Amino acid sequence: MIICKLISEVRQIVKDQRANGRSIALVPTMGFLHQGHLTLVEEAKKSGAFVVMSIFVNPLQFGPNEDFARYPRDLEQDAQKAAGAGVDMIFNPEVDEMYPTRNLTYVEVGELGDTLCGASRPGHFRGVTTVVSKLLHCVQPDRAYFGQKDYQQYLIVRQMVQDLNFPLEVIAVPIVREEDGLAMSSRNVYLTPEQRTEALVLQRSLTEAEKWVHQGERSAQVIAEQIKAKITNETSGEVDYVEIRSADDLSALATLQGKVLIALAVRFGSTRLIDNKVLEGL
Amino acid sequence: MIICKLISEVRQIVKDQRANGRSIALVPTMGFLHQGHLTLVEEAKKSGAFVVMSIFVNPLQFGPNEDFARYPRDLEQDAQKAAGAGVDMIFNPEVDEMYPTRNLTYVEVGELGDTLCGASRPGHFRGVTTVVSKLLHCVQPDRAYFGQKDYQQYLIVRQMVQDLNFPLEVIAVPIVREEDGLAMSSRNVYLTPEQRTEALVLQRSLTEAEKWVHQGERSAQVIAEQIKAKITNETSGEVDYVEIRSADDLSALATLQGKVLIALAVRFGSTRLIDNKVLEGL
Repeated sequence: MIICKLISEVRQIVKDQRANGRSIALVPTMGFLHQGHLTLVEEAKKSGAFVVMSIFVNPLQFGPNEDFARYPRDLEQDAQKAAGAGVDMIFNPEVDEMYPTRNLTYVEVGELGDTLCGASRPGHFRGVTTVVSKLLHCVQPDRAYFGQKDYQQYLIVRQMVQDLNFPLEVIAVPIVREEDGLAMSSRNVYLTPEQRTEALVLQRSLTEAEKWVHQGERSAQVIAEQIKAKITNETSGEVDYVEIRSADDLSALATLQGKVLIALAVRFGSTRLIDNKVLEGL
Repeated sequence: MIICKLISEVRQIVKDQRANGRSIALVPTMGFLHQGHLTLVEEAKKSGAFVVMSIFVNPLQFGPNEDFARYPRDLEQDAQKAAGAGVDMIFNPEVDEMYPTRNLTYVEVGELGDTLCGASRPGHFRGVTTVVSKLLHCVQPDRAYFGQKDYQQYLIVRQMVQDLNFPLEVIAVPIVREEDGLAMSSRNVYLTPEQRTEALVLQRSLTEAEKWVHQGERSAQVIAEQIKAKITNETSGEVDYVEIRSADDLSALATLQGKVLIALAVRFGSTRLIDNKVLEGL
């Protein structure tokens, strides 16, 4: 497995692979890899592509009071895990390589980025779409893989790729969970043992919501309120949002129908966790 | 010469040319071609590339009270001129092909787009950078050619390409003028014969400003005021702006030094014309 720090190296290697007839797959990550990331790699490998994993903690998508500085990093372990999963090349640029001069250009996906996580993290998705644009231009993949835990991010990237005619396919990969149900996240390491136990309420409440829907409940408000009550009653978690939206375009829904996203964000201490469930065919 | 209306066709043809070892050059235009456009093509031909000219009047870069509807169009004559100049393919999409669904995504180059022409045309450069991004993703050229008459546009596109790591080179081509000195523009056809004569004051005042500089004048304010006075005294033109800026980043200059842009925009009736001069080595 190759580890590249420079964009020029990445371009050359990708060009050589293409000349050899390989297609290119990109798995963009911020590192501190877990099984969720490795599942993206597994999916990417299925196509026979040369698999590039970017590992870059992107300052542009963190707010001034967010965890950019303390975001967990461990390149050595990441490299072992990536190699084990069959990654062909890691692209691990320094911040100066990605932003050598003051960045003036931003890619924005309007209203899709202002809601849900965007409402409590102003500028976050603008940072994501800008760095993803940069990574796509550095690697020029045929396919890029995104995890559905960050469902809003996946929708936004998909919209950006469609609107701007990026020549690639965006592929969503289902959430990977720990054995006890917690959605995998690099931020789970922030949790104390007590918070780690409390955090199980996210998956539990989503599963319960699915039951309510199967029993006939169709009111978005009722379901959202019940989830909030459950989280607040059973744990010390502070609800950032619980929202029921169209899974196609995040538009508000009063009544559940079609393909529906139940998305939530909850703080345990200073750690903000997200989770979601997509229900289809309602 | 091929004429394509569909992005899928363009992609396939470009791919085939690449497979044959040709590099790709893009000359983005809004059509109604004049010698300025054809000079871009001449430059593009020099590299031996397969030359794609896009002809697309982009609604996104026109304000609600601007001339989108009446912007001059003449594909038949454009095709003749382009073929004569050696264009290999015209890409002439319908608006629906470029914007099949409601566009949510914009590319913005912050402050560079808010000044000069951006100040009197809010949203204009956002429309330009967004459509240029789309065209670059459709054609995937190695080089793209822009005329220096739209100097601010060239700087903005160059900045965007640098900031977002688009894998291509942006090339600026000097202004082409009519025999009497008027900078070529598709909008010149809007001018009445009287306005056409009055409009010569643009080039005249820029040439005179250059003389003042060679005679030692270094005050940006003095030069700008003298140009404004000249335009207002000699013609019915209404000055939108006369600005002296750094030609590298459009930053304001009190004293002329280094590489300097003298840029102006003047209305004759409802027709807004722009022109500029770059002075180097001050």
